[in-house]
Amino acid sequence: MITLSIDAMGGDFGLDATVPAALDIIDRHPQIGLILVGDARRIEARLAAAGARRRRRLEVVNAEQVVGMDEAPATALRKKKNSSMRVAINLVKDGRADACVSSGNTGALLATARFVLKTIPGIDRPAICASLPRMDGHTYVLDLGANVDSPPAILLQFGLMGSLLINCLEGVANPSVGLLNIGVEDIKGNDTIKAAAQLFKRSSLNYVGYIEANDIYAGNTDLVVCDGFVGNVALKATEGAAQMIMGAIGEEFTRNAATRGAGLLAKPVLASIRRRLDHRRYNGASLLGLKGSVVKSHGAADATGFRYAVEVGIKEVNKNLVSNIENALTDLPDSDTLPA
Amino acid sequence: MITLSIDAMGGDFGLDATVPAALDIIDRHPQIGLILVGDARRIEARLAAAGARRRRRLEVVNAEQVVGMDEAPATALRKKKNSSMRVAINLVKDGRADACVSSGNTGALLATARFVLKTIPGIDRPAICASLPRMDGHTYVLDLGANVDSPPAILLQFGLMGSLLINCLEGVANPSVGLLNIGVEDIKGNDTIKAAAQLFKRSSLNYVGYIEANDIYAGNTDLVVCDGFVGNVALKATEGAAQMIMGAIGEEFTRNAATRGAGLLAKPVLASIRRRLDHRRYNGASLLGLKGSVVKSHGAADATGFRYAVEVGIKEVNKNLVSNIENALTDLPDSDTLPA
Repeated sequence: MITLSIDAMGGDFGLDATVPAALDIIDRHPQIGLILVGDARRIEARLAAAGARRRRRLEVVNAEQVVGMDEAPATALRKKKNSSMRVAINLVKDGRADACVSSGNTGALLATARFVLKTIPGIDRPAICASLPRMDGHTYVLDLGANVDSPPAILLQFGLMGSLLINCLEGVANPSVGLLNIGVEDIKGNDTIKAAAQLFKRSSLNYVGYIEANDIYAGNTDLVVCDGFVGNVALKATEGAAQMIMGAIGEEFTRNAATRGAGLLAKPVLASIRRRLDHRRYNGASLLGLKGSVVKSHGAADATGFRYAVEVGIKEVNKNLVSNIENALTDLPDSDTLPA
Repeated sequence: MITLSIDAMGGDFGLDATVPAALDIIDRHPQIGLILVGDARRIEARLAAAGARRRRRLEVVNAEQVVGMDEAPATALRKKKNSSMRVAINLVKDGRADACVSSGNTGALLATARFVLKTIPGIDRPAICASLPRMDGHTYVLDLGANVDSPPAILLQFGLMGSLLINCLEGVANPSVGLLNIGVEDIKGNDTIKAAAQLFKRSSLNYVGYIEANDIYAGNTDLVVCDGFVGNVALKATEGAAQMIMGAIGEEFTRNAATRGAGLLAKPVLASIRRRLDHRRYNGASLLGLKGSVVKSHGAADATGFRYAVEVGIKEVNKNLVSNIENALTDLPDSDTLPA
């Protein structure tokens, strides 16, 4: 049986999201066990309310502290050794759980996971990989913010890890990989990206060349590789633009009686647009490069969103993602011998 | 009288956009003269069709070549010495025009403007600054792609030039300036951005601190400064996401008879959303740091869009943007003495 540890206290909704999601997962997956980590008294109360029958395969481990959503990673590491996040990750380290899922603050989760689980040899810090929606599916992007100033050899590691993740989550045998650049011609970009392109061309990856940021949402590249600074900007620019557009739509439909009437009729249509763009359906960012599976759920995820993040963790374990990554990186030339 | 040179052949629409825009500008601005540069025979034919009365303040200069939209900058520089783009920029160099506006290919325009007009001392290559729409106005961002790997001292130059541009185009006395980063805390970002923050704090700029990419569309920062690689990614991610969302809206409204009915009623509302997001209203990116005003219009700009770009050029000249930038940069400590 596969077991996942759940940071039950993390995120904006805490137990309101994690407990219903956990119950849902138990109902859907007869072979999965979950360990809910956090305030045991409160968790037990929630579970009791849900009925004893549903307690099978659900364990509770007490943790007295909670990492705040704005808490500095260093503080969380030093002063929250009994936080729900830390204890949930410890369970993976101790082999009691196969993967950990948390909606807690990203910086603290990265720092704690790196400190407790350690990174795979050759990896300095875990990369964050998530999928973004496009018209006909979704595109995976990494790194989304954990690594700034990534040299070419690190970008190649991102490409390998991301390809294996897509293989595991989507069943795609040989995902297409693009390097994010500011143009598609060979002369475009900075020295890092040009050197990375040479490494990608010589690698075993299904490398398709440079892609521009708009192609994240249009093209048919399965994976887009970039430095964490750039990836984070792309992600947040997208979120900001989407929010602005949906806000403008709301404003225009409530402008006067006629537009409000049109808005009423358009309601189901607008709802299905929102559903298509719903970040909950794409929830669950993978921290790649650790000696263990850790999935970061969006802080604002509700029970549905959190369940998607747990599903990501289940797939990673089922497909042995961590050992696949370890093997792939062992086959790589030592990053010290590659151009920095 | 202020005179602007117009690359009449540039962009996807060429004369179909530039000639009507020029006529419109002449009608709106009694003190402005324009020089249309390109295939004189074809331009004259268009002007004749518009009536002789409208020929006042409109000069035509022949140029036999056209720079292709995908042509390499180096090729354009070497082999297109009589292109409409090159001749239009030459007119600024020779003092016959006060500013130049082109929808031509960005790389060629940057290279040609830099070669012909030269940059202001201390500036290596011109930066591209444009405004992006937000709910309650727009935010200027630079650099949008001309400079990759910009060190802190160059980012400070961007801040100064962008502030002066906003002052000139919007009449804002002391525009607020943010540095694009992947978080707002001091520990976030790479070494370049941290060193830049120190320079910005000590500068005369109205520096408000780090801002994240989503705040480009939400916040109330007048100017966002970033490296050209990062800015270009933010811009294109936004374009891609907006296109995807508007595409999804179109798809949902044409799904079946009921949604098509709702779509008919929602049509005026959707049109006003598109109008709000219409990039034509924000057309006209300024190439900053040159010894002359050059405005880049979007390649896909129609006559309305192109007119907005010409208006940007007119304002730059009216407010002496180039000499204001020259003065501000002279007052800066030598960039060699600043941390790289």
